[in-house]
Amino acid sequence: MRQAGRYLPEYRALRAKVDFETLTRTAELAAEVTLQPLRRFELDAAILFSDIMTPLQGMGVELKFEPGPVVREPIRTDAQIDALPALVPSRDVPFVLESIRQVRPQLPRGVPLIGFAGAPFTLLCYLVCGKPSKEFGPARAFLYAQPESAQRLLAHLADAMAEYLRAQAAAGAQALMLFESWAGLLAPPEFTRFALAAVRRTAAALRATGVPLIYYVNQGSALMPAVAELDVDVIGVDWRTPLGQVREILGPSKAVQGNLDPAALFAAPQELRRHVDAVIEQAGPAPGHVFNLGHGIWPDTDPQQVARLIDYVHERR
Amino acid sequence: MRQAGRYLPEYRALRAKVDFETLTRTAELAAEVTLQPLRRFELDAAILFSDIMTPLQGMGVELKFEPGPVVREPIRTDAQIDALPALVPSRDVPFVLESIRQVRPQLPRGVPLIGFAGAPFTLLCYLVCGKPSKEFGPARAFLYAQPESAQRLLAHLADAMAEYLRAQAAAGAQALMLFESWAGLLAPPEFTRFALAAVRRTAAALRATGVPLIYYVNQGSALMPAVAELDVDVIGVDWRTPLGQVREILGPSKAVQGNLDPAALFAAPQELRRHVDAVIEQAGPAPGHVFNLGHGIWPDTDPQQVARLIDYVHERR
Repeated sequence: MRQAGRYLPEYRALRAKVDFETLTRTAELAAEVTLQPLRRFELDAAILFSDIMTPLQGMGVELKFEPGPVVREPIRTDAQIDALPALVPSRDVPFVLESIRQVRPQLPRGVPLIGFAGAPFTLLCYLVCGKPSKEFGPARAFLYAQPESAQRLLAHLADAMAEYLRAQAAAGAQALMLFESWAGLLAPPEFTRFALAAVRRTAAALRATGVPLIYYVNQGSALMPAVAELDVDVIGVDWRTPLGQVREILGPSKAVQGNLDPAALFAAPQELRRHVDAVIEQAGPAPGHVFNLGHGIWPDTDPQQVARLIDYVHERR
Repeated sequence: MRQAGRYLPEYRALRAKVDFETLTRTAELAAEVTLQPLRRFELDAAILFSDIMTPLQGMGVELKFEPGPVVREPIRTDAQIDALPALVPSRDVPFVLESIRQVRPQLPRGVPLIGFAGAPFTLLCYLVCGKPSKEFGPARAFLYAQPESAQRLLAHLADAMAEYLRAQAAAGAQALMLFESWAGLLAPPEFTRFALAAVRRTAAALRATGVPLIYYVNQGSALMPAVAELDVDVIGVDWRTPLGQVREILGPSKAVQGNLDPAALFAAPQELRRHVDAVIEQAGPAPGHVFNLGHGIWPDTDPQQVARLIDYVHERR
């Protein structure tokens, strides 16, 4: 909700001149796009404009955005996994760190900058399948057919994302989010064995930074008991699981982030307020709730509705 | 798991000669394909070969399978909804009823035939979007932006599917399944208000037939408390929610169906057995568990693995 995107005319104007990949790889442009939503709305935080595949590109994985990421050579063998280099952020993705350094001084006082990375299993989905997919069949089959290779790849990605996020924090990111966009492909035993084990590795390496950690779990209704064990500060959830239920499972030691259905932005203004009320009621008394959408804003969303949403959330809080 | 599909060489051989739509609209061919898995495996039930969109075609909705259903004119206005005729199965889809009549006498003794239909909300997704989609954005926005129109369309589809399934039962189907493939797009309040209300309408109309009803809910981990209220005999679940948890929420009055991950068929044989054990253990003591996959078999599945799965389930039971 705090990230720029095609729903904003000013973003589309920039994209008409520059392709997506260039936006993500040019510090000045990424910084400009990061700031776009803050110029338009009174937001309580900014989130870095980037893509979860950007650090993998930095590690030498050849890919294109069409518009989803398409990897030239899907990774499925131990030889390919062992050939993946470690990520050295200052060498491989210096523009990301530079965009963070450029954004920070331009943010209003009290508005923190959130850095982010893809969670290891979600990155594995793209690397193994080679392209976006509804089912990510080859990635799921990979876990069952080659569990040791999957764990080896996940460990490598977990370490790379820890390096990446540590460098973002050093450059000025004040919170760090891991996106587990494809958590919902896995049953709880496989989620725990593969996805969660890798996130645990990343999170453990980041604890020393002292920067708050957010783990966004998409489609994770059945996974919350497993997620509750993870040592992070905030769990982001999609619109499918009522926040009250999530709170109950996670307990008082974690905050929650979410979870209005992005489709609710298509409701009439009065109805939209009712849906916001429902989310806030489910979340229970603040503190410990970061209001957000349960997933990204759709490109055909009316920015006026986003303005109404933000105003109303401020009014309620 | 009991339906034919591209993973079977004999199905692919037939499809090389006849397109998918013709298969679904020709009684002899649909009957033949329905029987294919039973010739190869020792299955405990047969499921009609058809498509959830077939009755909508019968109602005059123009669509093509490319291979997913693409509707020529997506339905989004009240005028379009009101123009949809009622379904008269004997006139609009006689070939489906005829294929049921042809299959029945060819089934081994004690092997029942399952008929099916798409659940109203899942059909709405295709009708409103016009084509398959990962997010089905236009359908979800439709619920929020035009809730009364959505309810009107759902009521119409609920009645049509009740007619359709009643006719299938009269032709010889011995159990009736409703597929809610896209339940997981909805948060519980919208699921209850739209999808479940429509299924309740269909199910109520079918109770008089005395035929067991199965409701398959894909991605419904957060929806089970709502589903528990529905008056059907069996709830089918995908691989994401542990059956033990489902049992606990549904209570003893409903049986469960599922829920091995179709990806598990790519595991080594010994590992596959371990995954089957886990499903059976979660399901608890029979009766009340129909072993199944949590979703359709993938086209690149090895039929040998399906044979191993079926043998092992028989061995365990």
